[in-house]
Amino acid sequence: MKQTKILLPETEIPKHWYNVVADLKNPPAPPMGPDGMPMDPSAMSAIFADNIIEQEVSAQRWIEIPEPVREIYQQWRPTPMFRAHRLEEALGTPCKIYYKYEGVSAAGSHKLNSAIPQAYYNKVAGINRLTTETGAGQWGSSLSLAGQMFGIDVRVYMVKVSYNQKPFRRSMMQTWGGEVLASPTNLTETGRRILAEDPDNQGSLGIAISEAVEEAASRADTKYSLGSVLNHVLLHQTVIGLEAKKQFEMVGDYPDMIFAPCGGGSNFGGVAFPFYADEAAGGKKVRLVAVEPSSCPSLTKGHYAYDFGDTEGLTPMTLQYTLGHDFMPPGIHAGGLRYHGASALVSQMYHEKLIEAVSVPQIATFEAGVQFARAEGIIPAPESNHAIRACIDEALRCKESGEAKTLFFNLSGHGHFDMVSYDKYFTQQLEDYEYPQSEIDAALERLPKVKA
Amino acid sequence: MKQTKILLPETEIPKHWYNVVADLKNPPAPPMGPDGMPMDPSAMSAIFADNIIEQEVSAQRWIEIPEPVREIYQQWRPTPMFRAHRLEEALGTPCKIYYKYEGVSAAGSHKLNSAIPQAYYNKVAGINRLTTETGAGQWGSSLSLAGQMFGIDVRVYMVKVSYNQKPFRRSMMQTWGGEVLASPTNLTETGRRILAEDPDNQGSLGIAISEAVEEAASRADTKYSLGSVLNHVLLHQTVIGLEAKKQFEMVGDYPDMIFAPCGGGSNFGGVAFPFYADEAAGGKKVRLVAVEPSSCPSLTKGHYAYDFGDTEGLTPMTLQYTLGHDFMPPGIHAGGLRYHGASALVSQMYHEKLIEAVSVPQIATFEAGVQFARAEGIIPAPESNHAIRACIDEALRCKESGEAKTLFFNLSGHGHFDMVSYDKYFTQQLEDYEYPQSEIDAALERLPKVKA
Repeated sequence: MKQTKILLPETEIPKHWYNVVADLKNPPAPPMGPDGMPMDPSAMSAIFADNIIEQEVSAQRWIEIPEPVREIYQQWRPTPMFRAHRLEEALGTPCKIYYKYEGVSAAGSHKLNSAIPQAYYNKVAGINRLTTETGAGQWGSSLSLAGQMFGIDVRVYMVKVSYNQKPFRRSMMQTWGGEVLASPTNLTETGRRILAEDPDNQGSLGIAISEAVEEAASRADTKYSLGSVLNHVLLHQTVIGLEAKKQFEMVGDYPDMIFAPCGGGSNFGGVAFPFYADEAAGGKKVRLVAVEPSSCPSLTKGHYAYDFGDTEGLTPMTLQYTLGHDFMPPGIHAGGLRYHGASALVSQMYHEKLIEAVSVPQIATFEAGVQFARAEGIIPAPESNHAIRACIDEALRCKESGEAKTLFFNLSGHGHFDMVSYDKYFTQQLEDYEYPQSEIDAALERLPKVKA
Repeated sequence: MKQTKILLPETEIPKHWYNVVADLKNPPAPPMGPDGMPMDPSAMSAIFADNIIEQEVSAQRWIEIPEPVREIYQQWRPTPMFRAHRLEEALGTPCKIYYKYEGVSAAGSHKLNSAIPQAYYNKVAGINRLTTETGAGQWGSSLSLAGQMFGIDVRVYMVKVSYNQKPFRRSMMQTWGGEVLASPTNLTETGRRILAEDPDNQGSLGIAISEAVEEAASRADTKYSLGSVLNHVLLHQTVIGLEAKKQFEMVGDYPDMIFAPCGGGSNFGGVAFPFYADEAAGGKKVRLVAVEPSSCPSLTKGHYAYDFGDTEGLTPMTLQYTLGHDFMPPGIHAGGLRYHGASALVSQMYHEKLIEAVSVPQIATFEAGVQFARAEGIIPAPESNHAIRACIDEALRCKESGEAKTLFFNLSGHGHFDMVSYDKYFTQQLEDYEYPQSEIDAALERLPKVKA
């Protein structure tokens, strides 16, 4: 009987997160404040607890995972890794294909890996209330559940168009006790200003971030929490890659190429960085491939420049690949990848050619997702379909060339709340959208000026 | 660190199913044909393959699980068992609470445990096409996926009201290649007759079964597949209880009481029967509690009599607890429990007082489900909420009495496609419905006459 599932025992939940900063030759570029000057970490204390800030700026290679976090990680970790025998057969490829499945978490994606420690550290710091934003709802769900687990109230600013289009993600957050508001609201200055200009404004992730940050900054009892982009979020996600390495060890294999969807970068960083650690320690070089939508091609077509994390310019500026913070992402169905930039760490590693990036069009990602579901059973989230597309493309290239590579991708979540997108795929209602080069060129002019 | 999750290695997937028939003192009552006389098993060959019929009537204690079935079981089996530390704390009970989680299957529930072997046996028998019915969609999803895995075309007659109200379950089946029709259709005599009388008929599970059976009986290339009630379906589900016993062994514990939702009976039989095997072999007696909705109280209030499995009277009659095959179940949200009867095996064991049954009202089941989700993370299917309710009730009784029992329930599936029901619970739109005794009494007159 062929082995399909590779399971680690509960005792193998990682005890430390891996911090890639320790293995980079060049130190990360400092974040810049609103004055365009390097920012002192303490300036972030209006919206983040001190223990979170400490982690955000740490250069320590291994950071211990607190026991209460590991205890809750047990609910779904270690996550299974699978050898995709049936997909390999369907493709007729000489490659071996493996995937790690993060959709087994109660919230349905890898996002819970960071929501749990963020809630924990805030609780330890005496914080009982968090604000955040959510688009598709994966992050808002995860933080709602994490807040419930640690007795922290969570208010989620959910992009209004998603609030109305994805009522079941909203119900999920409410089931876990999260308070969900349709953003823009009239509870913040940002929201009121936008609604005064346009009472029917349907919201955007940028606006929702601005509202959540504004509220956290204005209340002493409240901090802000972000589900990707920042160093500490990517750090928390490294449990994925650390477990995967042990699982490869169990079956005596090691990947040649790793694929992960890349929006803010926490999914990609989580699975890829621990393999980079092997290379940095003199081990085998694995090709690490960030896969982004061709409609939001920040790494593959964006500018490497200082930019804000939100539309309103309330966050610090980081050195990143960006399409411009005023970029309006087209309405693709991979809501988690509709972001103008990439995390500073992923951007730096891409700039230093330590990792690769490709972009794929929307319809082809759903085609790959359906092929995967029919072979392997699991229906993937639209974000995950990006990694599957790139992996299948490589497997088919190898079929031509006769190479027998070991390919690995992160199946970051299930698509149970995204069936409307699959419906649109089946009924030919999906569109491909290539973000035009002229728009990207024009954005360069509007990037903030920095004295670096 | 407290151990929460109890995982078996892949090598511990059961190699045999357990057939409770071998351990019953009295042989099962024979099914009756349309003439009201005991039926020869071969009479079922119009709708079932011979290898399925053989399993249906087997009295062999252990039946080997074919390797191709175990290979696919690997995708999600062994399923995790959890110690519900957080729920225990929330309840303040002296009891230990464990649950087995079947929602990790790609189809989201225990139903896949039987869909895979049913597809396999049909394939072996040379069948390339199956019909079935589905209400809430759990079974239709499972058989669509199983059909895809073995290259069998699957046509699902989906109750029209569900087809329209639960479009995402429909999309899920389509993603796996299932053909989904809104029943009643104009493709069968049953459907045409019903539509001629009432063109707006919204369908029922009974009608959908009749259409699926009628089509299978009329086509040589097609057989019928059922997701509960029958002996072979309950047999396949025993992998749940068999794994659970090993998991209890791992932590050196054993349950005093087991709770499972009970509609047709496959969920209950699957988790309970293997524990009954211990009692039959002279081991400890576990209280096995079937939990049904107070709106469909077949075991707790129904008649023990011969009745049909469907509304139209196309199936054989079995000796069962029934509310009458013309029972119209109220529109509760646990679609999987809206059935007029119970499986012959579960009925016989209840009649012989080997198992127990309780009924619980709808609103209280959602209250239990939300309490569970906030403590343990996972959002349960409405069916599973019935088991949780009964388990919590017992844990609270023990809190009063000071008894420290070991309680165990089967969390048969997740509620990702049932959030509309949770929404209705949160907005006080759910109702409780006690099925009236007068209706139950009246049904006795309409039961089919049998010469037994």
